[in-house]
Amino acid sequence: MAYQEILTFGTRGRGTHNISQDVARVVRASGVTAGVAHIFVLHTSCALLVTENADPDVRRDLETLLARLAPDGDPAYRHDLEGPDDMAAHARSVLTEVSLTVPVADGRLLLGTWQGIFLWEHRASGHQRSVMVTVLG
Amino acid sequence: MAYQEILTFGTRGRGTHNISQDVARVVRASGVTAGVAHIFVLHTSCALLVTENADPDVRRDLETLLARLAPDGDPAYRHDLEGPDDMAAHARSVLTEVSLTVPVADGRLLLGTWQGIFLWEHRASGHQRSVMVTVLG
Amino acid sequence: MAYQEILTFGTRGRGTHNISQDVARVVRASGVTAGVAHIFVLHTSCALLVTENADPDVRRDLETLLARLAPDGDPAYRHDLEGPDDMAAHARSVLTEVSLTVPVADGRLLLGTWQGIFLWEHRASGHQRSVMVTVLG
Repeated sequence: MAYQEILTFGTRGRGTHNISQDVARVVRASGVTAGVAHIFVLHTSCALLVTENADPDVRRDLETLLARLAPDGDPAYRHDLEGPDDMAAHARSVLTEVSLTVPVADGRLLLGTWQGIFLWEHRASGHQRSVMVTVLG
Repeated sequence: MAYQEILTFGTRGRGTHNISQDVARVVRASGVTAGVAHIFVLHTSCALLVTENADPDVRRDLETLLARLAPDGDPAYRHDLEGPDDMAAHARSVLTEVSLTVPVADGRLLLGTWQGIFLWEHRASGHQRSVMVTVLG
Repeated sequence: MAYQEILTFGTRGRGTHNISQDVARVVRASGVTAGVAHIFVLHTSCALLVTENADPDVRRDLETLLARLAPDGDPAYRHDLEGPDDMAAHARSVLTEVSLTVPVADGRLLLGTWQGIFLWEHRASGHQRSVMVTVLG
């Protein structure tokens, strides 16, 4: 069986937003006891992230590294219609990921002690973001 | 239930090939109304990509950035038996992804308005590439 | 139906460990004939990797490239409580992946001829690592 819900989040510009509890709630609503939860962002300039949930410096350091790998306003970009963060956001979305699957066990979303699921806004300004969650078991 | 098809594509060297319609066709053939479609390349030197489907400059800029992160013919590579693009292709395959899962809703592949699914050839020359699609619901 | 097993591996510091046979064994134990195997590491400083299984130089070259993209002891890191490899390991985990899905066909894990699944330890020292495998069909 498959249970689905589309979640919507308003982001406040570049940065991470912990959505672990939102996904866990969908898993409980599904009634699935053993299986997986699949999470998918319906956009090409934001992403999903699983990383340390304790020290916010980890996510700040991840931004620092991504800014090196896919800088804003790089002179090599041809796609810059929506500003210097436009192509950078697409590139960061590709280097991170738009699709994530997490186990469901004993009726609950299974994450390691230090793992959190984050929606990662890669655009400079805030956006309305839709995320489809599918629970399969 | 699981429905499976292996799709084969002939690539024409480094670059992206939009396979959204091919995957959508497999989803329709599966008869699954709610679930996921899993796509997997059976190779280690190409990848799958979800990105903007409108402006081809986005994919050109992605190539530009990958060429910096995993350049052809880097003197540090030890693995270069098949030429300067050999190790670069393996590395790009790892930095992007060989496995992709996309939601299926209302009997159709669910993508955001601007999202396309691309097969991304990372080798310099064309290759025959096999992709397994599994639809679960 | 969903079949699940948690596998535990002791790593010996940074490097790759081929777990293809371990995952294949879980797939056989599941009795699933057509579907997918989902693999998830319950940690934020190691990852999963699908790459060439023949020449170990490929994995050595991948380490070389990751060391450039997310170097140890970078002066920009704020998160360094557990040493110079602490933040580097989180970043490498994000640039690679903690979640991987592979097809199951004819009752067996389906990989391309040259593909292997590796557990990739990103910390400098050895760790005990838990991996949840869920087989769905």
